[in-house]
Amino acid sequence: MYMRKIIIGVMGPGDKASQKDMDNAFEIGKLIAQEKWVLLSGGRKQGVMNAASKGAKSANGLTIGIIPTKDNENTTEFADITIITGMGSARNNINVLSSNVVIACGMGAGAASEVALALKAKKHIILLTDNEEAKVFFQKLDKEHIHLANNPKEVMSITKTLIV
Amino acid sequence: MYMRKIIIGVMGPGDKASQKDMDNAFEIGKLIAQEKWVLLSGGRKQGVMNAASKGAKSANGLTIGIIPTKDNENTTEFADITIITGMGSARNNINVLSSNVVIACGMGAGAASEVALALKAKKHIILLTDNEEAKVFFQKLDKEHIHLANNPKEVMSITKTLIV
Amino acid sequence: MYMRKIIIGVMGPGDKASQKDMDNAFEIGKLIAQEKWVLLSGGRKQGVMNAASKGAKSANGLTIGIIPTKDNENTTEFADITIITGMGSARNNINVLSSNVVIACGMGAGAASEVALALKAKKHIILLTDNEEAKVFFQKLDKEHIHLANNPKEVMSITKTLIV
Amino acid sequence: MYMRKIIIGVMGPGDKASQKDMDNAFEIGKLIAQEKWVLLSGGRKQGVMNAASKGAKSANGLTIGIIPTKDNENTTEFADITIITGMGSARNNINVLSSNVVIACGMGAGAASEVALALKAKKHIILLTDNEEAKVFFQKLDKEHIHLANNPKEVMSITKTLIV
Repeated sequence: MYMRKIIIGVMGPGDKASQKDMDNAFEIGKLIAQEKWVLLSGGRKQGVMNAASKGAKSANGLTIGIIPTKDNENTTEFADITIITGMGSARNNINVLSSNVVIACGMGAGAASEVALALKAKKHIILLTDNEEAKVFFQKLDKEHIHLANNPKEVMSITKTLIV
Repeated sequence: MYMRKIIIGVMGPGDKASQKDMDNAFEIGKLIAQEKWVLLSGGRKQGVMNAASKGAKSANGLTIGIIPTKDNENTTEFADITIITGMGSARNNINVLSSNVVIACGMGAGAASEVALALKAKKHIILLTDNEEAKVFFQKLDKEHIHLANNPKEVMSITKTLIV
Repeated sequence: MYMRKIIIGVMGPGDKASQKDMDNAFEIGKLIAQEKWVLLSGGRKQGVMNAASKGAKSANGLTIGIIPTKDNENTTEFADITIITGMGSARNNINVLSSNVVIACGMGAGAASEVALALKAKKHIILLTDNEEAKVFFQKLDKEHIHLANNPKEVMSITKTLIV
Repeated sequence: MYMRKIIIGVMGPGDKASQKDMDNAFEIGKLIAQEKWVLLSGGRKQGVMNAASKGAKSANGLTIGIIPTKDNENTTEFADITIITGMGSARNNINVLSSNVVIACGMGAGAASEVALALKAKKHIILLTDNEEAKVFFQKLDKEHIHLANNPKEVMSITKTLIV
């Protein structure tokens, strides 16, 4: 009767995100909102987390931030709901367990940990990044669960095939 | 511009909840939803967690469950959004950090840990329980942050004074 | 062939510990070390955590601190081994899960959360405190797992009956 | 006066570990114990975690397991001290925060998450693996903190340069 909401996690660099990563994240966030899915991110007011949340809000979506710190001091203003974990990077595992599909938009140490933790949890992950070594490495680890996309639209069409 | 949503956490026993605890939790959940606040609970399909979520959905509210297990097998159907922690009772700290105000509806070991963790985090807590020893003990620990209520309506009027 | 070490957790207030709490904690730590058991504490350089670790080291024991922060800046010098969790009070659940027996020496919000989490995990807990309301409350929650002691020697004799 | 013990974390695959990974892990564990360092692992009775702990015990070392489950049912017998987290793969962050140096012996999703989390925490990591793509990927992420070794002896000589 009640339908649990579908949650799409968008992961990626914070202060080291490229402009392209952030543009992609904004677009992906917007497209997720247009599907009426919930956008989940790491919640900080930087880089991919901020941009994806902003994109989702631009399309009137619902946004969740899973916050590593013990309060909202560094939280993006575009997170409607903040889950305060106070547990630093250990919260990365919550990010992936809570997401129906994980999207890595760009690549850094934090995103790499989330992709790896998602693989450990047998989640499907879509990579949108110029980091070719990341694609090669993660596909070698688990070809079945790693999907490659070239732009936000491809990310979305792959996501739709994974949400059944 | 964007307003972060207000989150009210309702904590209480699972399989050992009394009928009165569950009735109170349902009513509190409903009243929270009527205020357009988000209802946060521990998310299991038992006792106070289930009843508060059901009450909030009866008034068309938004409900979040912070799940101790690694999947939704034992999750209440009345949780719109589930945050899967896979970290057992350590998630109790997330419950309280994420809540603007914590309401303990009934009392057991889990709820006691949440009240204590909430005190540690300097959160305000409202107790609605017949367990007089709990009231005495927690008020002795921190009179400023422990508030006593006799019924769901009192819970709500106290909550309103705490949300500024 | 190899024998897993027995771990005794000593919990209690940090900066609000009374002198008596710290004296008791020192003595309990020493007695634990004399039994060749490992002393586990929350690891901060304050109050009961510091005193219990210091007591165990005075008898050449092995001491572990489960650290809430992301580094050892505020860690007691008397912890031989520090497990850095970076997860704040959520680490309290690790404290109790890792202990064969939990001893609460003194009482505050943190210790109360550990007693409650230990009850949730069906651990045995020994209370040594002047806080009579704590004794009444926790014994009402679970008479089987809460044990009362009047001094460090009683704590140890009860502990021995629980370690089989 | 009291010297905190040095902890070396050895990470690697569980049930998918190769025989060579396990042989390397055993040897590394033994060498760590000979330096009087503490061996930290993920604690399960499989693969690299088990082999490294066994190697350390063969040289009379002290071994710690950071356990993902809520009890010791699947814990290696070669762990002297078990820290029970009950938090699944989120404990991987504790593994790396608690280690002075992280050694990845072999490569899988779990080990990849630990290498990435260690980079996030600015820890030094030594990779001993045939997975060339892992070396290329992680060195690209952070050349300063990723060190490559070809055998257990090289692992140890690099570790010594990192422990000052």
